[in-house]
Amino acid sequence: MQKYKKSFDYSYALGTELTLELLKQHPKQVISVYIHSKQKDNEIYRKIVSLANANRIEIINSDKIFNILSDKDNCYIIGVFKKYESKIDPNANHVCLVNPSNTGNLGTIIRTSIGFGINNIAIIAPGVDIYDPKTIRASMGAFFELNFQYFNSFDEYKASISERGIFPFMLDGAKQLDKIEIPDKFTLVFGNEATGLPSEFQYYGQSVLIKHLPTIDSLNLCNAVSIGLYQFTMGRM
Amino acid sequence: MQKYKKSFDYSYALGTELTLELLKQHPKQVISVYIHSKQKDNEIYRKIVSLANANRIEIINSDKIFNILSDKDNCYIIGVFKKYESKIDPNANHVCLVNPSNTGNLGTIIRTSIGFGINNIAIIAPGVDIYDPKTIRASMGAFFELNFQYFNSFDEYKASISERGIFPFMLDGAKQLDKIEIPDKFTLVFGNEATGLPSEFQYYGQSVLIKHLPTIDSLNLCNAVSIGLYQFTMGRM
Repeated sequence: MQKYKKSFDYSYALGTELTLELLKQHPKQVISVYIHSKQKDNEIYRKIVSLANANRIEIINSDKIFNILSDKDNCYIIGVFKKYESKIDPNANHVCLVNPSNTGNLGTIIRTSIGFGINNIAIIAPGVDIYDPKTIRASMGAFFELNFQYFNSFDEYKASISERGIFPFMLDGAKQLDKIEIPDKFTLVFGNEATGLPSEFQYYGQSVLIKHLPTIDSLNLCNAVSIGLYQFTMGRM
Repeated sequence: MQKYKKSFDYSYALGTELTLELLKQHPKQVISVYIHSKQKDNEIYRKIVSLANANRIEIINSDKIFNILSDKDNCYIIGVFKKYESKIDPNANHVCLVNPSNTGNLGTIIRTSIGFGINNIAIIAPGVDIYDPKTIRASMGAFFELNFQYFNSFDEYKASISERGIFPFMLDGAKQLDKIEIPDKFTLVFGNEATGLPSEFQYYGQSVLIKHLPTIDSLNLCNAVSIGLYQFTMGRM
């Protein structure tokens, strides 16, 4: 076992809760479960062992892998799993991230999206590797409930989805978020953490402004996504 | 110069933009400015040098400190500054963080608060050190516009501020955020990243729920703060 690389065809769920979510949602993908000698014999541990046994997954008692893979002291169970293909539902509501670059941000966005009932995230390449264990960890398990799909361009994405309102969030968005009339079907589009969306996104739909004072340059990406999701799903959950 | 410790009476602004903000907002506090040999002779560099000269602040050309203090490759200017006492304005609107534990989260919350016009943050101890360079960096300079103050208890905080609505954000909040009638004066109260607010906060004011699906345990703290700030300042900025 080595430190995760993007080229691997497997990845890691680093932690007890994450491994439990993995085993619940994608048992067929799990290759093995590592258990550290410090792991206590508690309820969640017994659930993991029972799910692993039920799915004939190898359980390995070893501490070594934890030093290599985790820099957190409280990680005592690791699930190793084969990456799986995922596709977004073309008819559902989406979050679309254009060139996201931060693994932790992406994980937090996944968690918040799932919390607001948006289970489909499109990523326009180039973008951070969604299978990075840091993304999975930051999602706190929500990753395993997510449909996701990479596209080479926004046009490619747009060609593959159903008719809907498209809402690019931009610093020069034409309409304030709280003034938007929210349609039944929508995609919320957000740009890169540092550079935002390229200006041509003004033409892809109704651009949206989250108004803030000029004392800051922009909102943090995952805060902007949260605010957008909150407003778009308000009263609909 | 050594790696930052909480016990120091000085801290660091790690980066060009941060150091410029520091020099603009708190020139009297700046002890010295370090410049790396790779820093280009550009506009922001010349602004920093000119502000440092105008305030008779020592400029030190040395690369060594950067290896010690920064793990980012793109940090070529560091401002060293004496910590200053800060007090919240008891009559302003506030964000109150009870036992926050993550430096990066706190910085992002500062940035978002300043962006939504809330320039006063109260922290109920124990809480993370607001002077940690990671907090300052994550605030992207907004830290230097902030009034902040630590209190030993929520009661001590409450005794020091003007009459207002107090809104503890809780997973079992009594009223949904979008149903709250927003008064002129308010404090938004948020708990620790992992544990939230203790249940007695139900009695401190009108507890607030940000509704999300049970597929996630909770929202990320700084996302919850952003959503709260968005709703409370909507139409008021």
